[in-house]
Amino acid sequence: QSDNNDVKLAALPYYNFGKGLGLTSPDSLFQFNIRFRMQNRATFYSKEGQDDYINAQIRRLRLRFDGFVGDPRFLYVIQLSFSPQDHGVIEDGDNINIIRDAVFFYRPNARWNIGFGQTKIPGNRQRINSSGALQLTDRSINNSRFNVDRDFGFHIYYLHEKLESFGYNIKSSITTGEGRNFNSQDDMGLAYTAKAEIFPLGSFTRNGAYFEGDLMREQTPKVMLSAAYQFNNSALQTQGQRGDALYEQKNLHYVFLDGVVKYKGWALQTAFMQRRTEGSSFAFDQLDTTGSTFNYALTGRGYDGQLSYIFKNDLELIGRYSYSRPTNEIRAFVGEAKQYTFGVSKYLKEHSFKLQAEITTEMLDFIGRVDRQNWYGRIQVEIGI
Amino acid sequence: QSDNNDVKLAALPYYNFGKGLGLTSPDSLFQFNIRFRMQNRATFYSKEGQDDYINAQIRRLRLRFDGFVGDPRFLYVIQLSFSPQDHGVIEDGDNINIIRDAVFFYRPNARWNIGFGQTKIPGNRQRINSSGALQLTDRSINNSRFNVDRDFGFHIYYLHEKLESFGYNIKSSITTGEGRNFNSQDDMGLAYTAKAEIFPLGSFTRNGAYFEGDLMREQTPKVMLSAAYQFNNSALQTQGQRGDALYEQKNLHYVFLDGVVKYKGWALQTAFMQRRTEGSSFAFDQLDTTGSTFNYALTGRGYDGQLSYIFKNDLELIGRYSYSRPTNEIRAFVGEAKQYTFGVSKYLKEHSFKLQAEITTEMLDFIGRVDRQNWYGRIQVEIGI
Amino acid sequence: QSDNNDVKLAALPYYNFGKGLGLTSPDSLFQFNIRFRMQNRATFYSKEGQDDYINAQIRRLRLRFDGFVGDPRFLYVIQLSFSPQDHGVIEDGDNINIIRDAVFFYRPNARWNIGFGQTKIPGNRQRINSSGALQLTDRSINNSRFNVDRDFGFHIYYLHEKLESFGYNIKSSITTGEGRNFNSQDDMGLAYTAKAEIFPLGSFTRNGAYFEGDLMREQTPKVMLSAAYQFNNSALQTQGQRGDALYEQKNLHYVFLDGVVKYKGWALQTAFMQRRTEGSSFAFDQLDTTGSTFNYALTGRGYDGQLSYIFKNDLELIGRYSYSRPTNEIRAFVGEAKQYTFGVSKYLKEHSFKLQAEITTEMLDFIGRVDRQNWYGRIQVEIGI
Repeated sequence: QSDNNDVKLAALPYYNFGKGLGLTSPDSLFQFNIRFRMQNRATFYSKEGQDDYINAQIRRLRLRFDGFVGDPRFLYVIQLSFSPQDHGVIEDGDNINIIRDAVFFYRPNARWNIGFGQTKIPGNRQRINSSGALQLTDRSINNSRFNVDRDFGFHIYYLHEKLESFGYNIKSSITTGEGRNFNSQDDMGLAYTAKAEIFPLGSFTRNGAYFEGDLMREQTPKVMLSAAYQFNNSALQTQGQRGDALYEQKNLHYVFLDGVVKYKGWALQTAFMQRRTEGSSFAFDQLDTTGSTFNYALTGRGYDGQLSYIFKNDLELIGRYSYSRPTNEIRAFVGEAKQYTFGVSKYLKEHSFKLQAEITTEMLDFIGRVDRQNWYGRIQVEIGI
Repeated sequence: QSDNNDVKLAALPYYNFGKGLGLTSPDSLFQFNIRFRMQNRATFYSKEGQDDYINAQIRRLRLRFDGFVGDPRFLYVIQLSFSPQDHGVIEDGDNINIIRDAVFFYRPNARWNIGFGQTKIPGNRQRINSSGALQLTDRSINNSRFNVDRDFGFHIYYLHEKLESFGYNIKSSITTGEGRNFNSQDDMGLAYTAKAEIFPLGSFTRNGAYFEGDLMREQTPKVMLSAAYQFNNSALQTQGQRGDALYEQKNLHYVFLDGVVKYKGWALQTAFMQRRTEGSSFAFDQLDTTGSTFNYALTGRGYDGQLSYIFKNDLELIGRYSYSRPTNEIRAFVGEAKQYTFGVSKYLKEHSFKLQAEITTEMLDFIGRVDRQNWYGRIQVEIGI
Repeated sequence: QSDNNDVKLAALPYYNFGKGLGLTSPDSLFQFNIRFRMQNRATFYSKEGQDDYINAQIRRLRLRFDGFVGDPRFLYVIQLSFSPQDHGVIEDGDNINIIRDAVFFYRPNARWNIGFGQTKIPGNRQRINSSGALQLTDRSINNSRFNVDRDFGFHIYYLHEKLESFGYNIKSSITTGEGRNFNSQDDMGLAYTAKAEIFPLGSFTRNGAYFEGDLMREQTPKVMLSAAYQFNNSALQTQGQRGDALYEQKNLHYVFLDGVVKYKGWALQTAFMQRRTEGSSFAFDQLDTTGSTFNYALTGRGYDGQLSYIFKNDLELIGRYSYSRPTNEIRAFVGEAKQYTFGVSKYLKEHSFKLQAEITTEMLDFIGRVDRQNWYGRIQVEIGI
């Protein structure tokens, strides 16, 4: 337990400014921290072939409780989410999707984290990065298409970072493969995830591999390179832990490669993501003998590059390029996409309280359908403790 | 920040007794207040043409978090609601409606409040009045028919009240017009609201224009007069921020007039409300060529008068008369209503902890349908901090 | 108010280790306690005639707030639940089922508790026992079939336990009979519940009749015998406070008998439960003139016996036998069941933090259908404050 009462869990990095609000029982038998964060935004959309529109909403509203019971080796983290877009629209037979994280951790020493419950699994870097510590208002299009999501199961981490020299982390999980609060159908097919992170020039300041932008202004160059793989056996949904129910179960394979470099206010983040199936992506409804009722696993690959510079006054300029290429099989339904984003962030209390603005243009290229070009402009306030 | 750690936000008045529970971080970087309130009630209904019945429920259960981050000019308010009637019955395609308020406020000085997010907008007085500071168990029938509801957008207030002499407030908002946690459909039509409040004889004690009853026993007469107007461009729902989806979008116009007088234990509250459309209230389903599938914007006007006296022992007697007149167009579906309510409230800790009882009779007058007379009796406990 | 700031309410026993986290306002006008508990589990199922499967989930995640307002005679308890299985799957027309408890209590002295709101009603012992203080991972099959559940109404308790000699409690409630957060339909039919508990050899240590296992290692034998009865007039659902909507209303009668004995690490818990209707259990859809659309009140009776021994190192071995016998009328749909469970619990901080494992085999015996034999193995972590 550090003196800023933060639960520094490798599985669930969380950005907070200052010492936080930690409540300890009079008999010191437990600690209980309360945190929240809120993201309010308004977006103007101009999409080819549609009327322009404005969307304004509470994009994220999270309550987080963490601490220990008995002694600091026995930790818990609970995160609840209340925003409409986090829940998704209600459909018959769904579960209510308020719980994001609910996990017990045993941390016998600084090297090992052993968890049981629901939390993020070690996939690509930007997904593990808290949405409260992004420098643009949301993750890239490749994250929404190809990443792995929170899941329930066992989480085993071995951490071996060093402050000034070569270090590494090994992170793994065995989970149900069906994602958050899934309770509709069960099988024997699990998801197996493993990840290696290396830090050739030593650790980032204040766990900086897991917040975006060089807010710490690293005085020596810092680098993280990581590679992760997941096998999701007999996935039930189009995107594994998320998406609609597939008509047939699919085995999914994922590869994630990430790189982060920070130095003197500059930050570069790059990512490669891939989801593929064994055999065809298409799943057919066996009850429809004409074969015209089907859906598909969202297969493909993508690349993100993101570069930023933060000025002395904590104003940051950010550019991002994303290229997202679904497999040819499904490109009549899901377009090849190129996205260019330019953003400005003003950090008032680091990532805990910031104002953000961005403009994104998007080119979508379909097989057998008319291509489209869209753009949007957005402002956002994030505030939290 | 007053020393009772209350966030006195004009947009969201909240009644609390005493100093409240304010937690400040060890490094004073933020403040976090926790509050809740609960209303439990049982009601006996006798409705003409129906069997009598009892309804007993948790009518309201709210958690509220507020405070500041960084310094007291940067405020947040979050309010969550968990009672079934606040959520409404689940329907496919709905959003889960837990968030009431989630708003960031910038308060550069005592005069200006600038907000971004979801909260109450400056409509009629009784709607802005917290449901925890009503003297009867609920707002009037005109409120449930004709008011404006919480909405997402920008909120700009200029406050110029004076303790003992003439003062005024100007309150305005630009919001989506579609109400709380609305995420189903988007357009360019916004809602524009403006309100003026004048206090010819000075401010009420402890912000008393926004709690009902003269609990403070004003020693000189206090008066608030207010007028508000809203234009909701291209509303998507039958009551603007609430209601079912309209088959056609409607432009809605609202007028609200309010008066509050308090003096030596007496309180008088009156209100006029009006919702109207441009052209017909009816909206037709374009897919049904017979024209027999339609719904309507709930248009009309109403008047409320409410008078109370509080005795030395904090027992209060309350009478209310409401007259609610839908437009003739829709009076086959929505009856003209006259309601007479008599109530008794016993305040144990002012509005924070009170016992309430009331009897209401209601006469409904329809065009082309049989008129009805109903009544109900209700008991309620409210407790909160 | 005891000095460990626990609200010891007979209606809602809650296990907590240590002094808890009680926040009192600076002006001592109220107290506010925050607690949570989380149960994470993974289960392997082998069911005859089905493929084996694994289910892993957050079984329970609860937040509880309690305390007093004004003075310690005026108490409140609020408990919220966020786990998918607690909510159940979403169906059109349902209410969102987050609130477990929301009740106001007036406790004029140590003998009387008078409550108004939603909480547990005085049915069988294991149902009143907090799910956080069970020694196996869940209640018996008879509990899930035949018990009474939380309900909204008045709760009146007279407590007359004595530490070392004969004592008793009388507990009663008058409630709506339709269960938690029910808001769909109303009638005049209420549920009337009464219960007597006797303690011939004096009270259990630390309210031990309402947590399972002899964690206190009673040095003299302690015994509780109880009997309860409920009449649910015009029940609307198949299990009274729970279940699907019945096609016809039914009057339900319940009998519950319980016994608990604890001595030197041994604990024995036995129970008898019965639900019956007046006349047939079947309810027919009056709209279907063929009589082929029906459902039924879940009527029958059952017996549980549960024995445990806890070793010096807080490792406990538990065995349970359950026999559950639906009425013959409905035994084509609901099997007669025999369940044998063997469990091991390791208490790290008593019931607040424990590891549990169990194996259960189940024999189901239907009339007119093939009988089945199932088994499952489960591990569970419970952590809370």
